[in-house]
Amino acid sequence: MQRLKLGMVGGGQGAFIGGVHRIAARLDGQWDLVAGALSSDSARAQASANDLGIAPDRAYTDFHEMAKAEAARADGIDAVAVVTPNHMHAAPVIAFLKAGIHVICDKPLAATPEDAAAIAQAAATSSAQFFLTHNYTAYPLIRQAREMVARGDLGDIRLVQVEYAQDWLSEPLDNKQAAWRTDPARSGAGGCIGDIGTHAYNLASYVSGMAATQVAADLDAFVEGRRVDDNVHVLLRYGNGAKGMLWASQVAVGNENALRLRVYGSQGGLEWDQEVPNTLRFTPFGAPTRTLTRAGAGGTAAGTRHLRTPAGHPEGYLEAFATLYSEAAIVIRAAKSGQSPDAQAHVPDLTDGLAGMDFIAACLSSSSNDARWVSLTGAAT
Amino acid sequence: MQRLKLGMVGGGQGAFIGGVHRIAARLDGQWDLVAGALSSDSARAQASANDLGIAPDRAYTDFHEMAKAEAARADGIDAVAVVTPNHMHAAPVIAFLKAGIHVICDKPLAATPEDAAAIAQAAATSSAQFFLTHNYTAYPLIRQAREMVARGDLGDIRLVQVEYAQDWLSEPLDNKQAAWRTDPARSGAGGCIGDIGTHAYNLASYVSGMAATQVAADLDAFVEGRRVDDNVHVLLRYGNGAKGMLWASQVAVGNENALRLRVYGSQGGLEWDQEVPNTLRFTPFGAPTRTLTRAGAGGTAAGTRHLRTPAGHPEGYLEAFATLYSEAAIVIRAAKSGQSPDAQAHVPDLTDGLAGMDFIAACLSSSSNDARWVSLTGAAT
Amino acid sequence: MQRLKLGMVGGGQGAFIGGVHRIAARLDGQWDLVAGALSSDSARAQASANDLGIAPDRAYTDFHEMAKAEAARADGIDAVAVVTPNHMHAAPVIAFLKAGIHVICDKPLAATPEDAAAIAQAAATSSAQFFLTHNYTAYPLIRQAREMVARGDLGDIRLVQVEYAQDWLSEPLDNKQAAWRTDPARSGAGGCIGDIGTHAYNLASYVSGMAATQVAADLDAFVEGRRVDDNVHVLLRYGNGAKGMLWASQVAVGNENALRLRVYGSQGGLEWDQEVPNTLRFTPFGAPTRTLTRAGAGGTAAGTRHLRTPAGHPEGYLEAFATLYSEAAIVIRAAKSGQSPDAQAHVPDLTDGLAGMDFIAACLSSSSNDARWVSLTGAAT
Amino acid sequence: MQRLKLGMVGGGQGAFIGGVHRIAARLDGQWDLVAGALSSDSARAQASANDLGIAPDRAYTDFHEMAKAEAARADGIDAVAVVTPNHMHAAPVIAFLKAGIHVICDKPLAATPEDAAAIAQAAATSSAQFFLTHNYTAYPLIRQAREMVARGDLGDIRLVQVEYAQDWLSEPLDNKQAAWRTDPARSGAGGCIGDIGTHAYNLASYVSGMAATQVAADLDAFVEGRRVDDNVHVLLRYGNGAKGMLWASQVAVGNENALRLRVYGSQGGLEWDQEVPNTLRFTPFGAPTRTLTRAGAGGTAAGTRHLRTPAGHPEGYLEAFATLYSEAAIVIRAAKSGQSPDAQAHVPDLTDGLAGMDFIAACLSSSSNDARWVSLTGAAT
Repeated sequence: MQRLKLGMVGGGQGAFIGGVHRIAARLDGQWDLVAGALSSDSARAQASANDLGIAPDRAYTDFHEMAKAEAARADGIDAVAVVTPNHMHAAPVIAFLKAGIHVICDKPLAATPEDAAAIAQAAATSSAQFFLTHNYTAYPLIRQAREMVARGDLGDIRLVQVEYAQDWLSEPLDNKQAAWRTDPARSGAGGCIGDIGTHAYNLASYVSGMAATQVAADLDAFVEGRRVDDNVHVLLRYGNGAKGMLWASQVAVGNENALRLRVYGSQGGLEWDQEVPNTLRFTPFGAPTRTLTRAGAGGTAAGTRHLRTPAGHPEGYLEAFATLYSEAAIVIRAAKSGQSPDAQAHVPDLTDGLAGMDFIAACLSSSSNDARWVSLTGAAT
Repeated sequence: MQRLKLGMVGGGQGAFIGGVHRIAARLDGQWDLVAGALSSDSARAQASANDLGIAPDRAYTDFHEMAKAEAARADGIDAVAVVTPNHMHAAPVIAFLKAGIHVICDKPLAATPEDAAAIAQAAATSSAQFFLTHNYTAYPLIRQAREMVARGDLGDIRLVQVEYAQDWLSEPLDNKQAAWRTDPARSGAGGCIGDIGTHAYNLASYVSGMAATQVAADLDAFVEGRRVDDNVHVLLRYGNGAKGMLWASQVAVGNENALRLRVYGSQGGLEWDQEVPNTLRFTPFGAPTRTLTRAGAGGTAAGTRHLRTPAGHPEGYLEAFATLYSEAAIVIRAAKSGQSPDAQAHVPDLTDGLAGMDFIAACLSSSSNDARWVSLTGAAT
Repeated sequence: MQRLKLGMVGGGQGAFIGGVHRIAARLDGQWDLVAGALSSDSARAQASANDLGIAPDRAYTDFHEMAKAEAARADGIDAVAVVTPNHMHAAPVIAFLKAGIHVICDKPLAATPEDAAAIAQAAATSSAQFFLTHNYTAYPLIRQAREMVARGDLGDIRLVQVEYAQDWLSEPLDNKQAAWRTDPARSGAGGCIGDIGTHAYNLASYVSGMAATQVAADLDAFVEGRRVDDNVHVLLRYGNGAKGMLWASQVAVGNENALRLRVYGSQGGLEWDQEVPNTLRFTPFGAPTRTLTRAGAGGTAAGTRHLRTPAGHPEGYLEAFATLYSEAAIVIRAAKSGQSPDAQAHVPDLTDGLAGMDFIAACLSSSSNDARWVSLTGAAT
Repeated sequence: MQRLKLGMVGGGQGAFIGGVHRIAARLDGQWDLVAGALSSDSARAQASANDLGIAPDRAYTDFHEMAKAEAARADGIDAVAVVTPNHMHAAPVIAFLKAGIHVICDKPLAATPEDAAAIAQAAATSSAQFFLTHNYTAYPLIRQAREMVARGDLGDIRLVQVEYAQDWLSEPLDNKQAAWRTDPARSGAGGCIGDIGTHAYNLASYVSGMAATQVAADLDAFVEGRRVDDNVHVLLRYGNGAKGMLWASQVAVGNENALRLRVYGSQGGLEWDQEVPNTLRFTPFGAPTRTLTRAGAGGTAAGTRHLRTPAGHPEGYLEAFATLYSEAAIVIRAAKSGQSPDAQAHVPDLTDGLAGMDFIAACLSSSSNDARWVSLTGAAT
């Protein structure tokens, strides 16, 4: 089977998430990285491309040029990964969508509602697909959790408790990653809420199958001089009467990347922790808690769809990310061949991206209004 | 050393918390149970007293009579434990306070603000002490956590995340314990908020050393026909700018008695779980997490004040409860001898009880007003 | 119900295990400590007795005198707890057995095989019962594990992995506890093997229902100058073809009191850890692991026989120890009334004590013979 | 940087470990798979090659032919991965070593001592390197553990407790994986001892820096009809007086792939669990246990040499395996350029392979001689 051809915008030397996307693309052998506009700095773009084995004529410094050139090549890229800081998502995404090239974009969708709307408009008129890398949804046991909720193992969902705690911004920090993530001009008006709060919200929605209808949010910037929020407390209300709490923090000392989800229904409960992702605790009401394991006894179809190793061989963050790239490949191959993709293929998309933007905006609005309830736009429609 | 003499109101056959109080009183050998009004049913009161080795002439059916009789005896009780349902706290508490007999009362303080005020009034004019069994504060590592916060190990406190999750009321339940705890006439207007929410709030205050100034609460009764809340979501604001979240639930399937506290400051973080109470995770910012153990390396004065066994010999709920009784004994012995008690002795008291009532009232008020912020009375003064 | 009357030999000020026995005796309200030969030093014996509320005329300095006097009193003790160092077990045990007074003795049975034989002889001709406090057998989930094995939940038992790791003797130590436990004249020829290895062996036998037939042991004294073993490696063979490993260590840095048992059969496996005693992991082959909890869902009759609190209220070391005292009380009350005790009552006894002595002797013999297999006496008969 | 070119022998459709090697080779972008003798069945070899994008002219059915052809090509492979069942290791390994092509071989080295000797002889006269994929050594925290031991963080090593427990062979099993692994003609005389016991032994040696001098082993085949061992109990002695225990089992119900290592020295202890590989517990004697995390605070040079993601982003089995491929690439690139490789590069090699064969042989010999001590050949020289 031919590998698909991938391009990348952003992700030059010194970046974090670009390297993750590249490993994810390679891991299952579905993609070759063949083109890139890895940096707006020409020398750095060339050096980064050279490091990655990209041919010099496909090492671009301008993504507009790249979109045009790649669309014109017979061997042009099948998709582009956009891994720039948030405020630099919209322009390349739109350029590639207009060029008819599929887009795999890092989250959140954009830095501003205006950018998000522009992306949505471009997507609406493009033949190309838009994928958003809410990578945490691709953990096998998260897919299994979603399936278990959907088939009723928990009964009616009553409660969603989700949290995403880190501590790396507990003090003022002066590195490349911290710089743009705490700069409203580059990350958007939300800090922690956009960077990790959206992951938490998306994960909760993905597993519970429910979108919140209202939020009440109390956002803080605890570190002196910080211009965006570094801690987020949110109450959630869902349409069916379910309730939730979401906590996201970058100042919770002792937490590295502690994304944890708990969902409780009338008949059962589920608990999962991203830092120990190969186990999922499931309790049917009135029975002992079962520890479900990746690829282990009790695995469901969704939980075992991408088996690389047997149970007990821990998979992690990169494998989950790779699953998104493999699922995107399935969708794109189907599109190329004019067939409909495997119905089980699932990559977060524009809908998720817009829901995330809606969530950020509603939380910012609530927080600036003393944590009053704010309705989510999407939920209202 | 002479044991102190204890009486008990409530706690007859079939009760839960009465038995716990009796074990707690016995465990360290500081108390003898010698009198009781264990039930308002005369036969049951006698049978219960007989089971417990209480002499027939001190097996009362009426607590008024008991207070009077015991106060009159030369060998009368030093203190009475009040372990009745919430709505039955105030009357006996007041009766014994008026009789000059120390009171050890189960939490919450009372079922209504009126009852609480009446207790406060009685206490103000009594020579006797009032103790409230917020037993979770007496775990050794909770005392250590409080000391660590107070001495600045965590820097300035920014965040308090506290939760108390159970699942025993996930379905309608028809037993003695459930009956009064879900009956507003007996438990008070709050259900989960009073029964376990107050424990969570008290624990957070105890360790952090901070009282909330405002709460925004969203309370629910998920089980059909339930007349009091069974799930509680609360946002907390503290006077110094710190923030918090409190979750209490009796419908979180898979949780037995999961009281968990996390406190984060500018320089460190602490995490503790009541179900695994002999470890406390402490992370100084930028350093690996330390697992502190009861009686183990790194123990503080407060954490090792009541050593019964070496490290690795797990203590639990009953030992913590017993510590309250031993601390109460220290205070009472000092009072009897006219000396001031050991300054390190600590048992929650009327102040804690009133703070809990304030918290319940504020949460009920907030929840009935769409989760608007409500100021806590005590905090405003 | 009248409390039983307890005496104590050993356990004066500064001792560890004496205090534990006293708490255990008090906890369930079945015993009153009324007499003691708490120290061979007269002043210390009196002071200790006074601390404990023992009447002066029952504060003995000589256990022979105590046995005689108590046997002669109408209100004499029902049982005596012997909590002296190992080499001081035999003499008081024999004295009280001869006086017809029940004995509750700390483990191991004795310091030497000769002492053990003498105890056995005395017990054979006494009307009194002999109880040995292998306290770890009394954890609720250990009793449940035993019941699960016995009723076949694990199928045929194949493997027993047991370990008991501590680190307090990692360096030369000069305190009262270390002094006698590392002195062959007082602890017996075995150090670690007797002090904690016997607990591990007993626990494995208790749960698996099997006695080893052969051992191959490699014992070491890692700390310079130590005269008894501080680390024990043992291979075990059972009569039915099952195999086992036993590791006991007092020099495993990072372990406080880490007694862990794992039992595997053809159809299931069980895992338990003394430091987190309120959970028991059970895996039926081919199914997810269940976390069984004390008093929680899936509890068995044996596991819930002594319920003091609901699930999620952690019990620990002292509660398990107290259960032994309560079970002894059940047996003694039955003896006093001429009835047979509840068939479910279980306290380790002379058989366990002799099996432990057999185990120690076999391991010492094997280790001195280059870890050759040595048959256990008891098993051979 | 040009990718290196990889060939593969074995690993056709339906195999397990071949797919793992391919992911490992791809993950860090250092290797392209360009040739293979994936099956001895011609049709299956072609189909497998086609699946993997291998050009038809490099899809061999005979590894002798492949070695010759690839050695002759200007663009021939840099290395070959040998992922056949154990008894099929020696022939291809020798063929490629003779052809001057580097070999990356799955463990154990071979099925028989004769095969191992033949490989050693071929390696001695080849210009090519031999790498053995004891992949568990490449976990970041295992490398860190080794460094910590080497630099003395634990003091003098006293104890090594290692275990590798699985349960997949608890019952007779009739699939491709089980078939060859329980067939002495294909796996070698050892079953569990060779398949996973060697991993455990290698890991213990790697971290402790010590080779055992003597073993006493008790091997069993618990499942009826099984012709090789499925459970292994081994006592270990090291030259410096340190002792160890090794347990490997394929019938320990409830264990998926539970490789656990604990090392204790005079000054500290380390504990690690392959199923939760991103944490390492370290206890300095007399201080609280630290939880060290991959890429987290307290990371050492060896532990952070291959950083793909920040702390809290779990890595797993595949990443560790990929590190071996990346390290092999470093060594091979250096060889190609005539430079010496980075001194920190480390891939297990022939020495490890021979030590593993020595360990297997000694354990089989000991077990057949009633678990008498058997000296390890390597250790004796």
